[in-house]
Amino acid sequence: MAGTKKLGKQTFAFTAPPVILASGTMVGPMEGEGPLGEYFHMVASDGLLGEQSWEKAEMALLKSAFTIALDNAGLQPTDIDLMLAGDLLNQIISANYTARDMAIPFLGLYGACSTMAESMALGAILVDGGFANRVLQGASSHYNTAERQYRGPAEYGSQRALTAQWTVTGAGASVICAPELVAQSGITTPLPRITHATVGKVVDLGVKDAADMGSAMAPAVADTLVTHFQDTGRNPDYYDLIVTGDLANVGSAMLTTLTRQATYDLGNRHVDCGSLIYDPSQDAHSGGSGCGCSASVVGSYILQEMANGKFKKVLFVGSGALMSPIASQQGESIPGIGHAVVLEI
Amino acid sequence: MAGTKKLGKQTFAFTAPPVILASGTMVGPMEGEGPLGEYFHMVASDGLLGEQSWEKAEMALLKSAFTIALDNAGLQPTDIDLMLAGDLLNQIISANYTARDMAIPFLGLYGACSTMAESMALGAILVDGGFANRVLQGASSHYNTAERQYRGPAEYGSQRALTAQWTVTGAGASVICAPELVAQSGITTPLPRITHATVGKVVDLGVKDAADMGSAMAPAVADTLVTHFQDTGRNPDYYDLIVTGDLANVGSAMLTTLTRQATYDLGNRHVDCGSLIYDPSQDAHSGGSGCGCSASVVGSYILQEMANGKFKKVLFVGSGALMSPIASQQGESIPGIGHAVVLEI
Repeated sequence: MAGTKKLGKQTFAFTAPPVILASGTMVGPMEGEGPLGEYFHMVASDGLLGEQSWEKAEMALLKSAFTIALDNAGLQPTDIDLMLAGDLLNQIISANYTARDMAIPFLGLYGACSTMAESMALGAILVDGGFANRVLQGASSHYNTAERQYRGPAEYGSQRALTAQWTVTGAGASVICAPELVAQSGITTPLPRITHATVGKVVDLGVKDAADMGSAMAPAVADTLVTHFQDTGRNPDYYDLIVTGDLANVGSAMLTTLTRQATYDLGNRHVDCGSLIYDPSQDAHSGGSGCGCSASVVGSYILQEMANGKFKKVLFVGSGALMSPIASQQGESIPGIGHAVVLEI
Repeated sequence: MAGTKKLGKQTFAFTAPPVILASGTMVGPMEGEGPLGEYFHMVASDGLLGEQSWEKAEMALLKSAFTIALDNAGLQPTDIDLMLAGDLLNQIISANYTARDMAIPFLGLYGACSTMAESMALGAILVDGGFANRVLQGASSHYNTAERQYRGPAEYGSQRALTAQWTVTGAGASVICAPELVAQSGITTPLPRITHATVGKVVDLGVKDAADMGSAMAPAVADTLVTHFQDTGRNPDYYDLIVTGDLANVGSAMLTTLTRQATYDLGNRHVDCGSLIYDPSQDAHSGGSGCGCSASVVGSYILQEMANGKFKKVLFVGSGALMSPIASQQGESIPGIGHAVVLEI
């Protein structure tokens, strides 16, 4: 740790901020047809990706995202010190089987849809602490694997509630690199740095509706955001963009209310990955969700528009609904968690 | 990081080694009747712990382990900077709901039965790197929750293979503390320190038998052990004890063979948590397994006998079978992973 400061109880301020050397994203056809279609590095022509099952398709998506990120960084798996990944599937099989293929020392994570932010925060911590020169991090989800596991097979054609979110078929990954090693990469364009991370708490205000994940997550995201502002002494207007993922439309409205109650007005600088990824005409109801939602949106649109100069200071809060069918069946409510990272260029 | 050295590709040598300030363990009745019964901090009188479901019983076990560890350290949850935990259940519900109750900033992990070692290694890294003064880490499992999720409800009474392991009903936790803060605790007895950590790779030699997890995990543990010896330049005889968990009897025999092929003879200094926790008369077949196996054995017997002076240098390798019913149904083999930490007193 090169002088990293702990701010308040939950925030780290990196004094030699780790650099996002490159990213990689791959999504399914519906996401490719959405408003961000041109930003994704690769779009699958069908949701099976030539595999025999939805689960194997999701593994292929995640592996593609990692491979693209490595290619864009000009690196091989052997150049990476640690890999951090997770996904929504039981036993995080997408991450585990991809880690098997990559053969990089691996720490498996479970943060539900917050996994992109969790792995990005932890990756920055490990690089800043000198424990790794380069970390490969990422997350994935797939509409059909998530529907089958959490609700019912999509083939049943159950009617979806208007508060429901559409699990993104997609994956995102990045290479987080120690700043002193960026020169080795030969990349000379400005690169985003991870300057802060705020690790969230599990927060549960009692939402039990598995068709309304946005409302289950919003209180945790509000808690992390307010803590971040308090820890750093910043206000929302410090940032060009506050991007959450994935509260979607219903959860975003609740977040606005909750943060305003805590005297922080996010204003029009707040966007949500779940609201950005689909067009209303795509009938995704409240919007997108899944680990792959923020992973693919942050890994493509956000980072590319930072490189283009559109955004300079971005606060990304990944949100996870820690929903479990068996816990719900036993009467439990759905806790949420949010982890934040600050990206600056 | 106070001068931590990276040894080889996968090992960290802490120069200001984090201290295990206190631990807490709680197990079920069968584990309490086993050879290590007197070492556990608490033994439940029945497997339901007064709860309405096996899952809620497992959450209660994990929460007890955390509470005991905090009590033994003389600390409150608000004294802890970060909590790291995981378990075997889908969406790691034991860890998530316990984190909700503890209200500590939380990073969820999934490493199957390697989670105790994964969280201990990561906890030491975070403390050594200056990112946390005190980390609370732990893991749990429960025979009935694991049987239902991975195989079939125990009530079915399916005949078990002789290679099968018995999932431990138990949990273990510890408080990992920055060395300069130990004096604040008022604890003056010698305390174990975490001097090294070796982060493992996912290894898969093709085992597909879900009733033989020991054989699925042994290659990954052998890989981590051999890498640890190569990275540190040490031989097995540097250690008083090499404790794996949980290969049990079948996997331990395979580990001995695999490490001997790599010219490292573990000799009689190797024991396995899965072989230690039950007496052969308890009919657990190959032995114990589950996140709670190594969590409860290391958190009680190993640490207490280190305090007693019986063991001074212990190499603990937590092993995880990254088994997934859905991946197995789709023809996949079962990958394994092993993470190592060195405990010295």
